[in-house]
Amino acid sequence: MDTEAQQSEQWADVTPDAARRLVIAAVDAFAERGYHATTTRDIAGRAGMSPAALYIHYKTKEELLYRISGVGHRLALDIVRRAASTGATPAERLASAVRSFVRWHAEHHTTARVVQYELGALSAEHYAEIAARRREIDGTVRSIIEDGVRAGDFAVPDVPGTTLAVLSLCIDVARWFNAEGRRTPEEIGALYADLVLRMVGAPGPAAA
Amino acid sequence: MDTEAQQSEQWADVTPDAARRLVIAAVDAFAERGYHATTTRDIAGRAGMSPAALYIHYKTKEELLYRISGVGHRLALDIVRRAASTGATPAERLASAVRSFVRWHAEHHTTARVVQYELGALSAEHYAEIAARRREIDGTVRSIIEDGVRAGDFAVPDVPGTTLAVLSLCIDVARWFNAEGRRTPEEIGALYADLVLRMVGAPGPAAA
Repeated sequence: MDTEAQQSEQWADVTPDAARRLVIAAVDAFAERGYHATTTRDIAGRAGMSPAALYIHYKTKEELLYRISGVGHRLALDIVRRAASTGATPAERLASAVRSFVRWHAEHHTTARVVQYELGALSAEHYAEIAARRREIDGTVRSIIEDGVRAGDFAVPDVPGTTLAVLSLCIDVARWFNAEGRRTPEEIGALYADLVLRMVGAPGPAAA
Repeated sequence: MDTEAQQSEQWADVTPDAARRLVIAAVDAFAERGYHATTTRDIAGRAGMSPAALYIHYKTKEELLYRISGVGHRLALDIVRRAASTGATPAERLASAVRSFVRWHAEHHTTARVVQYELGALSAEHYAEIAARRREIDGTVRSIIEDGVRAGDFAVPDVPGTTLAVLSLCIDVARWFNAEGRRTPEEIGALYADLVLRMVGAPGPAAA
């Protein structure tokens, strides 16, 4: 589970306080038992509230998932975008994006798992909105790789496929990351930034 | 969902026929709704059987998950081991292992998702057994990378971390693979073999 400090920071924009408590309770319940095995009663109970109090903030369980997915994807997009403009060269920008994206998936692995594995439970309309945000994340990473190829810094025969692989590598950190494990989010970020620079054929010991 | 032909091939060792039908029904139900939201009644129904008939073959829902996870991991280990001994050089063996492991996760993405995302629902004893098999898969890939480093063919500063990343990249194919998508399992396997050779610093256009 994400730490309490990480939870509060992550959901700071969800107001009022009761709505935020419900989101945090829902993430934990979905992560533990899966979306379909969780009832709104379970979520209200975890938040120390009545089912009736839950309905003031969220009309359905799907609305809670949509809120979680929306906030999660917006944070991930912001992080990748900010990192993508940090650094002078495409190699520095790519390394920065990978380090940040990895760190986010490690630190917020509980949220990330819910967001990634329960996409199929969103309504068609909500899914379309989230999918658009995912394409923006993909586009941000792809354009750094394209910049690197154009500058002659990277050698990438298949840019869309390599972009997909880079994002997949980062996202899967949420599956295996263990807060009690040997590696910190920062260490995994540094390792992965180096591996990704190798994937794009950036020369020499990481510009990172 | 995996195709019918893939299902039959994959579960060929599960006998008698009724036990195999139940495993196939359980994989589909777990993939669709999650382990905790699925009842043994749901599974029996999908297999066209009564709950009583299910209990002849499996005493609990967890036993079905354990059977699925056990077969899935054994197949994955066999595939990686066989591929790991195919090829003259470490680069050829690594490319072969990655191609096969990726193809397996793409073709059997439904089973692979259940196996990967529901590990936490196994009993402690069953989990310990599956974890040992996972360490064998990890060890197989790690020793190819070690061979490559020893032979001077690879340049890998962090062998355990790189092994973890290689396996993670292959496993995550199960999450995003879409049978209606643009890339076939073979194409993804070829792309990933090339990317992994770059990750280990194998020189030049893929020995693959």
